[in-house]
Amino acid sequence: MAVIGTAGMRLPIWAQKVAAAGVASQLLLGVDYYPDQTPEGLWEEDSRMMAEAGFTNVRIAEFAWALMEPSEGKFDFGWLRRAVQTLHKHNLSVILGTPSAAPPPWLSLKYPEIMEVNAEGQRLHAGGRRFTCPTNKVYRRLSLAIASEMAKAFAETRGVIGWQIDNEFTLSSSPRCYCSFCQTGFQEWLRSKYGSLDKLNQTWGTVFWSQTYTDFAQIPVPLPSGGDPNPGLALDYDRYQSYANTSFLEEQLVMLRQKCPRHFVTTNNVGPPVDYIDLRELYKNLDFASFDNYPGFFEMLLHQQMKGGSVPAGTIRTATGLQHDFARCVKGGKPFMIMEQQSGKAGQRTFSPQPEKGQVRLWTYQAIAHGAMGVNYFRWDTATFGAEEYWHGILNHDRSKSPAYDEIKQTVKELKALGLELLYSRYPAEVALVFDYDCGWALQIQSGHHGLSYVPQVTAWYGAITASHTGIDVVPPGADLTP
Amino acid sequence: MAVIGTAGMRLPIWAQKVAAAGVASQLLLGVDYYPDQTPEGLWEEDSRMMAEAGFTNVRIAEFAWALMEPSEGKFDFGWLRRAVQTLHKHNLSVILGTPSAAPPPWLSLKYPEIMEVNAEGQRLHAGGRRFTCPTNKVYRRLSLAIASEMAKAFAETRGVIGWQIDNEFTLSSSPRCYCSFCQTGFQEWLRSKYGSLDKLNQTWGTVFWSQTYTDFAQIPVPLPSGGDPNPGLALDYDRYQSYANTSFLEEQLVMLRQKCPRHFVTTNNVGPPVDYIDLRELYKNLDFASFDNYPGFFEMLLHQQMKGGSVPAGTIRTATGLQHDFARCVKGGKPFMIMEQQSGKAGQRTFSPQPEKGQVRLWTYQAIAHGAMGVNYFRWDTATFGAEEYWHGILNHDRSKSPAYDEIKQTVKELKALGLELLYSRYPAEVALVFDYDCGWALQIQSGHHGLSYVPQVTAWYGAITASHTGIDVVPPGADLTP
Amino acid sequence: MAVIGTAGMRLPIWAQKVAAAGVASQLLLGVDYYPDQTPEGLWEEDSRMMAEAGFTNVRIAEFAWALMEPSEGKFDFGWLRRAVQTLHKHNLSVILGTPSAAPPPWLSLKYPEIMEVNAEGQRLHAGGRRFTCPTNKVYRRLSLAIASEMAKAFAETRGVIGWQIDNEFTLSSSPRCYCSFCQTGFQEWLRSKYGSLDKLNQTWGTVFWSQTYTDFAQIPVPLPSGGDPNPGLALDYDRYQSYANTSFLEEQLVMLRQKCPRHFVTTNNVGPPVDYIDLRELYKNLDFASFDNYPGFFEMLLHQQMKGGSVPAGTIRTATGLQHDFARCVKGGKPFMIMEQQSGKAGQRTFSPQPEKGQVRLWTYQAIAHGAMGVNYFRWDTATFGAEEYWHGILNHDRSKSPAYDEIKQTVKELKALGLELLYSRYPAEVALVFDYDCGWALQIQSGHHGLSYVPQVTAWYGAITASHTGIDVVPPGADLTP
Repeated sequence: MAVIGTAGMRLPIWAQKVAAAGVASQLLLGVDYYPDQTPEGLWEEDSRMMAEAGFTNVRIAEFAWALMEPSEGKFDFGWLRRAVQTLHKHNLSVILGTPSAAPPPWLSLKYPEIMEVNAEGQRLHAGGRRFTCPTNKVYRRLSLAIASEMAKAFAETRGVIGWQIDNEFTLSSSPRCYCSFCQTGFQEWLRSKYGSLDKLNQTWGTVFWSQTYTDFAQIPVPLPSGGDPNPGLALDYDRYQSYANTSFLEEQLVMLRQKCPRHFVTTNNVGPPVDYIDLRELYKNLDFASFDNYPGFFEMLLHQQMKGGSVPAGTIRTATGLQHDFARCVKGGKPFMIMEQQSGKAGQRTFSPQPEKGQVRLWTYQAIAHGAMGVNYFRWDTATFGAEEYWHGILNHDRSKSPAYDEIKQTVKELKALGLELLYSRYPAEVALVFDYDCGWALQIQSGHHGLSYVPQVTAWYGAITASHTGIDVVPPGADLTP
Repeated sequence: MAVIGTAGMRLPIWAQKVAAAGVASQLLLGVDYYPDQTPEGLWEEDSRMMAEAGFTNVRIAEFAWALMEPSEGKFDFGWLRRAVQTLHKHNLSVILGTPSAAPPPWLSLKYPEIMEVNAEGQRLHAGGRRFTCPTNKVYRRLSLAIASEMAKAFAETRGVIGWQIDNEFTLSSSPRCYCSFCQTGFQEWLRSKYGSLDKLNQTWGTVFWSQTYTDFAQIPVPLPSGGDPNPGLALDYDRYQSYANTSFLEEQLVMLRQKCPRHFVTTNNVGPPVDYIDLRELYKNLDFASFDNYPGFFEMLLHQQMKGGSVPAGTIRTATGLQHDFARCVKGGKPFMIMEQQSGKAGQRTFSPQPEKGQVRLWTYQAIAHGAMGVNYFRWDTATFGAEEYWHGILNHDRSKSPAYDEIKQTVKELKALGLELLYSRYPAEVALVFDYDCGWALQIQSGHHGLSYVPQVTAWYGAITASHTGIDVVPPGADLTP
Repeated sequence: MAVIGTAGMRLPIWAQKVAAAGVASQLLLGVDYYPDQTPEGLWEEDSRMMAEAGFTNVRIAEFAWALMEPSEGKFDFGWLRRAVQTLHKHNLSVILGTPSAAPPPWLSLKYPEIMEVNAEGQRLHAGGRRFTCPTNKVYRRLSLAIASEMAKAFAETRGVIGWQIDNEFTLSSSPRCYCSFCQTGFQEWLRSKYGSLDKLNQTWGTVFWSQTYTDFAQIPVPLPSGGDPNPGLALDYDRYQSYANTSFLEEQLVMLRQKCPRHFVTTNNVGPPVDYIDLRELYKNLDFASFDNYPGFFEMLLHQQMKGGSVPAGTIRTATGLQHDFARCVKGGKPFMIMEQQSGKAGQRTFSPQPEKGQVRLWTYQAIAHGAMGVNYFRWDTATFGAEEYWHGILNHDRSKSPAYDEIKQTVKELKALGLELLYSRYPAEVALVFDYDCGWALQIQSGHHGLSYVPQVTAWYGAITASHTGIDVVPPGADLTP
């Protein structure tokens, strides 16, 4: 992949914001850090070591709701403020995550109606993450409340440069909710989309199998029903779920724009290896796109989508490149950020192996070469508890330096030497690959062949093109192909 | 297979009825047509083309409940009457389907208690088909009501020759219901079968694992229970479910006999590739048996029953012949009808490929040679919407003629030339193959080997016999083998 | 395996109890018998034949709750007393099973809250066995009541020598319960274990994914939740479930100690092929351990644990030896009993084949050589009904002698000739193999590799060691390895 510097352009908005915040380098090279999970006595030393490694920023707090709001309406940002101060003292800028991906126990217990219902019609339980309904108004109200309190508390705090809303909307063992709130939300969304039942009935062809609706309230969600659902309804439901997640994010975004105009706002996701949410819509009003890059994890995600079929040969190798090209194109070629970059072996029920020597540096350059303007490594230290205790970070479980530490330090140094030039680079694509969410969802509804799954197919096509070192833009259907 | 004409016999009842209705040919050669899914402006042209192709009849309306009863108790048969008239104008006789396989949305919403509960204990939802309980009295009442209104409306309508009750009782992703209504119905059925609890306890051996019942109300349905159910209970439950579906059909049959004495009555099913309902009982009081013949679909059905094991070699090839021989024998050798004959590529999650040139003609002759006296091709046009939008018909999605059109037209012409002779043909079987529902159900309960499934086994045996071109009758256990 | 006699030791307590009960031989060589399932007219002849075969004891009644308490609070032990008398007349001692593994229908119907909830959150139904919650106080009360009545009725009955509490705690298709009673029980158990929420939160690292608990009542059970549970919580839940089953057993044990001081008390289980319950705890206060030995069944159990992966080669062959060595060590080297020994082909959905000639004798010597002091063969006659109608016994379905009859008779004779010497034998182990329940449970929570499962691994290691004919003790972590 060629990266060509083109000087003399005006700094993009987000970079202006970063610059205004006083960060030395516009390249965001940092780590994902968990002061909430770390004894306060270690923060100073951690910060010093991060600075020593050349890092410019950290992302923190995206799973710390329970500490920030230990009981309903009682907020405690003291610890977080001290963490920001300690980090900033070492010239580390801070990206704050809003914590709506995992509510605290008191909340789940008090408001059981917020729990997601999965595709088999079973209500999820507390104890994991992303177990909440994206439509539910109570959960939206409480999510917006904690995010608003954070925004108020940190709008003027030195060191804070931006926000990540929520965390990984696309990753869940039950990516779509089928609860009664979503059913009502779907009915309202349909009313708005089709205007009349006549139009809806005609578009979906509800006359088939006697499904003509005479009231929006009759419209079901596609739960098990003795036979396949109407494909029009099912596809619209996937679109609604994507919309519901996007509008959930937008509520926090509107608030952050109002309260923190000087901060950039983004969110982080795993991209094309999964396709449950239309990321073009999700990222639409954000300053830039952020992606989480776990090459060793993508294999498992692709295998899951094959439902027992085997992933076409070579697919895994190219999945990472596809996500990067998608990431660059999702906001029309704007530089993107890697908010979480795999730094070690990782996994839960299945482990991705320890990266080879040089592989983390390779992954970093691969991202930069595809248009990234920042990379945060996941994660600073390795958790000694919790569901991700085997996701290895830059520090080992005993806080000794992992094999990746020196490699990352060197890579950061090299990238800083390349500097701002990178921000104005251009990626000359000769091929446009259409990535169409509707198409992927339609194939999930009726694939026609049990071994046919959209994302693995697109990844295989992508791999076939890149084999000849041809630059690729990943575009939506109907994109202007003139460039 | 040899078909031998034997002249001079009296016309069978159904054929007398067809003749009395003024149909030129006693062979029923037609299509499955969906005026409900077709703009009224196209009916005339469709009818003209059907007549031109030589068709004698159509089957219509089996999924049109929502149009015939748009709200509870308000009936609208105007459109259906116009459709019948248009068809009849072109000398096409009409078989009407009663619509109980898929209730309209207002009904599912108002009477949620009618929904089936599947084998895992989860209630099904609206949106597909066959999601209703066969025992539930409310659903039976409403099903009988719409069928009765149809019967009243069309008993004397010229062109109407017969009825298909419901549609494909044997095809559902959850073929048996385990709801509380079925539990009560099962308990009543057991009371009637065994007379006393003592007899039931002794027959089932309920003393095993402490299951002695002291009240019929204690008897459970075989839902997940930490260990296998009592095999006697489980087998009786399968019999009950078969009975419940049969008695559901019988309610409509009794009514049709009373209201439409001049019309024949049948129902259509997929046979031996599935065995959830004892078709000998289901067809017992009907005029003749009808079967739906999708050779390309049978492979999938057999694979499902193998639960991951592989279907014995050659099984797929012979599954179609087995269904035909079963169909002829299910009512003691009476000619049967193919109510739906695959005409093109078909499928939803898995597709059966486009038939080879000549294959639809071959399938037709195969059916006739095994004793069919009629074939309706599925379907006239290809739906542009709904769960079966990839089940290709005689017309393509754009209403152009599919590859099968000319082939079917030729086949119809050839069959008409053979004419009534076929009705009196005899099929000389030298081998009787026992097909025993109880045996198949018992093997589903405790197979003894994870790769052992009844229907694939029987199909393999059938294939081994037919390899020597020996005629086969498929008989129940205890059948008189003298012939 | 070497068995070395060491004379001059005092009889162990259980053997003293057996001797005091007047049994001629201290080796318990018998059968599992079901007078409840056998016409009373056959008891006499059965007893005579058992005595003729050389048997010294039978185990009876462990699934006869419905006959002993036909309605709540009405007890009937007349039939059981007559059965004991008939058996004792032929010098057969009796081990009585308490019946809590399968409640009668009236009980399940009246107290639906006792039903287990499985790992997907679905409530089990009556009709199988082990479908009850181990925490539920109502079920505990009713289980203790029937056991107490039995104890009262048979404490002084000649011929009764001991008790088996319940039956096979470790065997269920849903081995752990996740109901609200278990949730409350878990919370109380945690309160007792950790003392304070601070300690619990710190130990589990609940700060991860915002799971800090501020009230014990907030703590969930690990049901589906969009992401993996906290591993600390999940592991503690497995421990709690093991504890709940153990304390369920202890309630009956305390009662039996009080009411039947002259009787020994044990329970029977399948060991290492499954590891859901810590058998070291379960057997802790029992007189000796009993195990059920179905070599042909262990393959299926190991395969289930591999979740589709294949069991390492040679594992099946050694699974039986591992269970025996585990059985000897579970109570510190005390002789153990085989309460159920496979005697013929067996199975339900999958069958284990008919043992080869000599194989039942081989299995018996294998058990004795590993330290067994008794073997009961399963079962006397083969049931002609019920979920285990294909588990073949010493008599066939028609009560003729099975191939195993003469073989077992010969084996019993040989063992009696060896006599009491065996009780003082010592098993010289040179290797200690650590079997750690916590480790197995932790690997079920996050295996790191989809093909990694604890018990099959340990079994493979065991097999590798025994290949060199080295004696093995199976010990808990932290065991004193001096011997």
